[in-house]
Amino acid sequence: MTDAARDVTLCEVGLRDGLQLVAQFFPTAEKLAWIAAEAAAGVPEFEVTSFVPPKLVPQFVDAEEVVRGALALPGIEVAALIPNLKGAERGFALGVPKLDFVMSVSRTHNLKNVRREREESLADFRRIVQARDALPAGRRPKLIGGLSTALGCSYEGRVAVDEVRRYAAELAAAGADELTVADTVGYGDPAQVRAVFKAVLAEAGALPVGAHFHDTRGTGLANVAAALECGVRRFDASLAGLGGCPFAPGATGNIVMDDLAFMLDSMGLRTGVDLEKLLAVRAILERNLAGAELHGTLARAGLPTNYVPARLRAAA
Amino acid sequence: MTDAARDVTLCEVGLRDGLQLVAQFFPTAEKLAWIAAEAAAGVPEFEVTSFVPPKLVPQFVDAEEVVRGALALPGIEVAALIPNLKGAERGFALGVPKLDFVMSVSRTHNLKNVRREREESLADFRRIVQARDALPAGRRPKLIGGLSTALGCSYEGRVAVDEVRRYAAELAAAGADELTVADTVGYGDPAQVRAVFKAVLAEAGALPVGAHFHDTRGTGLANVAAALECGVRRFDASLAGLGGCPFAPGATGNIVMDDLAFMLDSMGLRTGVDLEKLLAVRAILERNLAGAELHGTLARAGLPTNYVPARLRAAA
Repeated sequence: MTDAARDVTLCEVGLRDGLQLVAQFFPTAEKLAWIAAEAAAGVPEFEVTSFVPPKLVPQFVDAEEVVRGALALPGIEVAALIPNLKGAERGFALGVPKLDFVMSVSRTHNLKNVRREREESLADFRRIVQARDALPAGRRPKLIGGLSTALGCSYEGRVAVDEVRRYAAELAAAGADELTVADTVGYGDPAQVRAVFKAVLAEAGALPVGAHFHDTRGTGLANVAAALECGVRRFDASLAGLGGCPFAPGATGNIVMDDLAFMLDSMGLRTGVDLEKLLAVRAILERNLAGAELHGTLARAGLPTNYVPARLRAAA
Repeated sequence: MTDAARDVTLCEVGLRDGLQLVAQFFPTAEKLAWIAAEAAAGVPEFEVTSFVPPKLVPQFVDAEEVVRGALALPGIEVAALIPNLKGAERGFALGVPKLDFVMSVSRTHNLKNVRREREESLADFRRIVQARDALPAGRRPKLIGGLSTALGCSYEGRVAVDEVRRYAAELAAAGADELTVADTVGYGDPAQVRAVFKAVLAEAGALPVGAHFHDTRGTGLANVAAALECGVRRFDASLAGLGGCPFAPGATGNIVMDDLAFMLDSMGLRTGVDLEKLLAVRAILERNLAGAELHGTLARAGLPTNYVPARLRAAA
């Protein structure tokens, strides 16, 4: 493996995907403590909030404050989710360097999640790109085209690979700087992951393609391994596996950041993460989410005996 | 994929690997009810007990009765674990068709688990093969050479691939009919799995090679996917992820049979398992293991919407 092929970028999405289902408000200062601690553990990217209307998801009432706090932290990439142009405009105003636009490949899921037809989502994304391009140089964020329910939909079931390919091509043509393929409801298996990513990578050309997996049916890390083999080197995850989707019944939990970082490190890939420090960040979730179920096997079993982190191993 | 390459054999090891750590006695009739129900759900093989001295593991005081009961069930392959010649002789006497001999690749683990040097374990295996070959035709069980701690050891840490290769070659040369590579303490990652299985398959020649994974650090199903790609088509697992090893601190849980069967089925592989029926068998564990932690994500999330089992899908 070349040196570059060993580098994997992890993005913590728990502050958005994890917290959107948590009714209890996670205090703003604690959100920022979480980001700071996980950044200190080496995680380089954070999706810190969602620019949905706060009346829909009260957890994100502090979106602006969280973004400002995160932007003040050195050395991390700050991203935020945008469902539409209105959300994008909030991101532009704050100078968020990366905006994650989402649309669902499944028609029904898109209607439930963002209340529009998929073609309307695409048209909106084109307007967002146009608005972004009209910003002064140096103020133009990267726009990520996110394909939700790309591995299945809790309303429709299987999602055809050709549909994923089609919307990947549309988002790329519309001007996305990156694509993210999301298994929003945790339906994917490694064979399907290979088929879907192969199709999307073919459409993406030079654009980076990231993966966003949920561990709803135990296949999360197996899907990561399959995506790695396709050449994917960007993964979303959430500390302690917080997460889900309010419009996807039964979809519980992003893949566990701590377990993901361990698997990648064990495989000799370079994530920049210090596993012991990362595990310690769980304490911030524990103290703010009393009674919530935190996931993760590494936290329970600990690192293997005499474990040598990838960064200290001799290059193979 | 050829038709034969789609066939995967699953072996339920919860009655041995799962129960050996459970202090509470699981009634013999309930063990047999478990086997019968899981056989009816389509699981074809069962490691039903262990021929260790009952004073070491009181759970196996009914080994003979369980074997007799299981042998009376139609259409399943019955296996039992043997740590030594004495255990093998108990198996021979009962006419068990398949005996799983175990030794650890890690010297320290072998000393703790079976109280011998690895070379003594090998010598014992040769005596077992000899004793088996002296039995009358039609009474000779298959002998499986099991390589424990092949992906790491809780005493020694990393285990060298060359050591696994060496003991695989020794067991094959000694007359094993199959080999099983076991990640006894759940240290493996997909890259390591590929390296270890590649080495073992090279030594195994025509002998089937099975995989026995634990999900201690979340990598269990990812390791299955990696082994599948190496051509492995035999997997141990335990319903609800019961399992561990009394001499491997922190090693909790075989991979979850129900989640494994789902992943394989979703990938279009043929296991013969009816997923709904399999999930229903968990009730037998629940009623006999009050308070025990049962694992499994499929049991919680349910099958995907409009899920079509592999057996009902058109061949790809």
